[in-house]
Amino acid sequence: AVNGSRLWQSLMDMAQIGATPKGGVCRLALTDLDKQGRDLFVQWCEEAGCTVSVDKMGNIFARRPGRDDSLPPVIMGSHLDSQPTGGKYDGVYGVLAGLEVVRSLNDMNYVTEAPVEVAVWTNEEGSRFAPAMVSSGVFAGVFDLDYGLSRADLDGKTMGEELARIGYAGDREVGGRKVGAYFEAHIEQGPILEIEGKTIGVVTDCQGQRWYEITFTGQEAHAGPTPMVRRKDALLGAARVVDAVNRIGMKYGPLACATVGLMQIHPNSRNVIPGRVFFTVDFRHPDDAILAAMDGELRTEVERIAGEIGLETDFQQIWYYAPIKFDETCVAAVRKGVERTGHSFRDIVSGAGHDACYLSKVAPTAMVFIPCIDGISHNEVEETTPEWSTAGCEVLLHAVLDRANA
Amino acid sequence: AVNGSRLWQSLMDMAQIGATPKGGVCRLALTDLDKQGRDLFVQWCEEAGCTVSVDKMGNIFARRPGRDDSLPPVIMGSHLDSQPTGGKYDGVYGVLAGLEVVRSLNDMNYVTEAPVEVAVWTNEEGSRFAPAMVSSGVFAGVFDLDYGLSRADLDGKTMGEELARIGYAGDREVGGRKVGAYFEAHIEQGPILEIEGKTIGVVTDCQGQRWYEITFTGQEAHAGPTPMVRRKDALLGAARVVDAVNRIGMKYGPLACATVGLMQIHPNSRNVIPGRVFFTVDFRHPDDAILAAMDGELRTEVERIAGEIGLETDFQQIWYYAPIKFDETCVAAVRKGVERTGHSFRDIVSGAGHDACYLSKVAPTAMVFIPCIDGISHNEVEETTPEWSTAGCEVLLHAVLDRANA
Ligand SMILES: NC(=O)NCCC(=O)O
Ligand SMILES: NC(=O)NCCC(=O)O
Repeated sequence: AVNGSRLWQSLMDMAQIGATPKGGVCRLALTDLDKQGRDLFVQWCEEAGCTVSVDKMGNIFARRPGRDDSLPPVIMGSHLDSQPTGGKYDGVYGVLAGLEVVRSLNDMNYVTEAPVEVAVWTNEEGSRFAPAMVSSGVFAGVFDLDYGLSRADLDGKTMGEELARIGYAGDREVGGRKVGAYFEAHIEQGPILEIEGKTIGVVTDCQGQRWYEITFTGQEAHAGPTPMVRRKDALLGAARVVDAVNRIGMKYGPLACATVGLMQIHPNSRNVIPGRVFFTVDFRHPDDAILAAMDGELRTEVERIAGEIGLETDFQQIWYYAPIKFDETCVAAVRKGVERTGHSFRDIVSGAGHDACYLSKVAPTAMVFIPCIDGISHNEVEETTPEWSTAGCEVLLHAVLDRANA
Repeated sequence: AVNGSRLWQSLMDMAQIGATPKGGVCRLALTDLDKQGRDLFVQWCEEAGCTVSVDKMGNIFARRPGRDDSLPPVIMGSHLDSQPTGGKYDGVYGVLAGLEVVRSLNDMNYVTEAPVEVAVWTNEEGSRFAPAMVSSGVFAGVFDLDYGLSRADLDGKTMGEELARIGYAGDREVGGRKVGAYFEAHIEQGPILEIEGKTIGVVTDCQGQRWYEITFTGQEAHAGPTPMVRRKDALLGAARVVDAVNRIGMKYGPLACATVGLMQIHPNSRNVIPGRVFFTVDFRHPDDAILAAMDGELRTEVERIAGEIGLETDFQQIWYYAPIKFDETCVAAVRKGVERTGHSFRDIVSGAGHDACYLSKVAPTAMVFIPCIDGISHNEVEETTPEWSTAGCEVLLHAVLDRANA
């Protein structure tokens, strides 16, 4: 019922924008390349007969009218921004699978009861601007608009400024409207489906997350004449926290994840003892109580390590959301879609955060996963297959029809 | 015999160029600010009647003729480049104390037997371009000219390109001439003189150094859905090496120093397991055998850590010099200068590397240290006092006269 090769071709076309040498994509949120990706998406949607609107967070909505256009829409979506060395599918797949559903409905001259929309959420990755999923969070009322627009990158540029600069500061209010259902298709970004030979993941839950920003301040001094015992080496402290974060992740395994992904060293000179280090911690677990225990251990470790070296500490938890359960009716709609299309499947908990996590606060929500090769994502070599891509889109179509015609 | 307030004023004037908010200096080698500092020095030297020449490494020599100008010169000098967050005295003090010796000789209409020169060595710090002391090293024949000119910063710009850009690629051959003696005045950059209440350090030795560049390559992957046991986290490896480097430094203490000052994380994104980390190690010890033992332990630790995480390793020792003993006649000249001026003193081993280390390979060499407050250097708060500054310059003058009239 869907045109899998058209979907694949669109994925490949979008992947040209910000293409990297190793076959990946660098299309950071609200850069010129992000604008190019958005423009291409908008053009495709208009060619498909949709009406396009943009809200104040730069979220894009392409609407295909329903028979009763006053009904709340069923929204499909995800994001077009990527990691610095990201892949071709993370986010883009959910957006373009949504577009393919619209194109397929057009091919069939099929009119749904409720309107159907395809959404692009701004800055899902949380790489250029932290936290992740900030604009779907504003849509869901989890963050207020000022918070969203004032998120700044490491150079101090805000999302508000950058939205205006690339021409995607829309005039539509963010959220505050009824959504009939929200479906997001995505690559799994982990190894489970591929290992078990399943084509579709019916996502029932998302694990919770806590993100931290830590700054250690010690004292810059000369690497030569400064005795070891007089040093206040901020990098030594940060290094010990990296090791502690790993220990915490292993201790609460196999489901816990614990990562230090970003670190900035000052002054970052070979023969200077680092005086200041800024770094981040990313904790995840499907059980909120365990996530809280991990939080407690991190605080204890950071205090102990700072104490033993004599560092000043600035410790901030900058982001937290509890594990999320998706809507039973929407999960059932996905499951029905799997049954109708006959693909192999299993229920799965998402390890990554998705815009669906926040949409679930204001709309019945579920997700469809497809495998990615070796479970690798946030990497230029991220890969999936045309067959899996088509299968996920078929399931998405059926789930959307189920809810749009309910 | 010297004009201490003129010297202090020159230090303060030079410190305007690249001044930082916290009272320090950022004047990285071969930047526009380094050019401004060089231009001011050249202007001052010409005003003092010196003839200025520049060699192919950008080393500057300001010459005051001797009675017998065919005698090999006595050279005083140090460097004008700084760390990214450096102080006002590191290097600059030795250059301007040399200039003050020349100005004082002018005031007294004193003609030395041998000519006297003030030298500025290019890129002593080793911060923008590694290794340190590279241009005095070329002067001394330790490095060849091509090696010196091809040193590149982290953006890939070479010293040769940057010398040409700022107009300091001179036409004089580098080194290859007889030097009667070399004296370098410098702040101690460590705490010993101040703790013991001594004004002058008679530097007898410099500890040896080994510098390393290490790259760990693992696999970038998503911080959420990637189980801990499947990870190849390059930052976890680097963090464990930072801790190991500290352990090695402590083990061979109190004289050993061991530092990781620079680290670059790729892709440096909060929710991506780091796939590649580049970092440096700086080892020092006054005993070459112990420095070799530290080297052995580092190699073992790096291999063990890479093995336990599954990382690929690129390990390079990029710089090594054995501990250095200064020339007895020059050290005696410094000691005589201390006796004549009556300042308190002690013999001392330099913890930092200095251009004097390489000059000692081709000329009788010694150094004069003055205290710096709290032993802090390579820091914007680096400080000394006008009294110490004057005292060191007096000793330098006497030592130079001893050798230039020998
Ligand atoms: N799906 C995805 O990569 N989201 C980024 C936010 C996160 O790190 O969970
Ligand atoms: N004196 C000084 O700071 N030299 C820099 C080279 C080194 O790190 O030893």
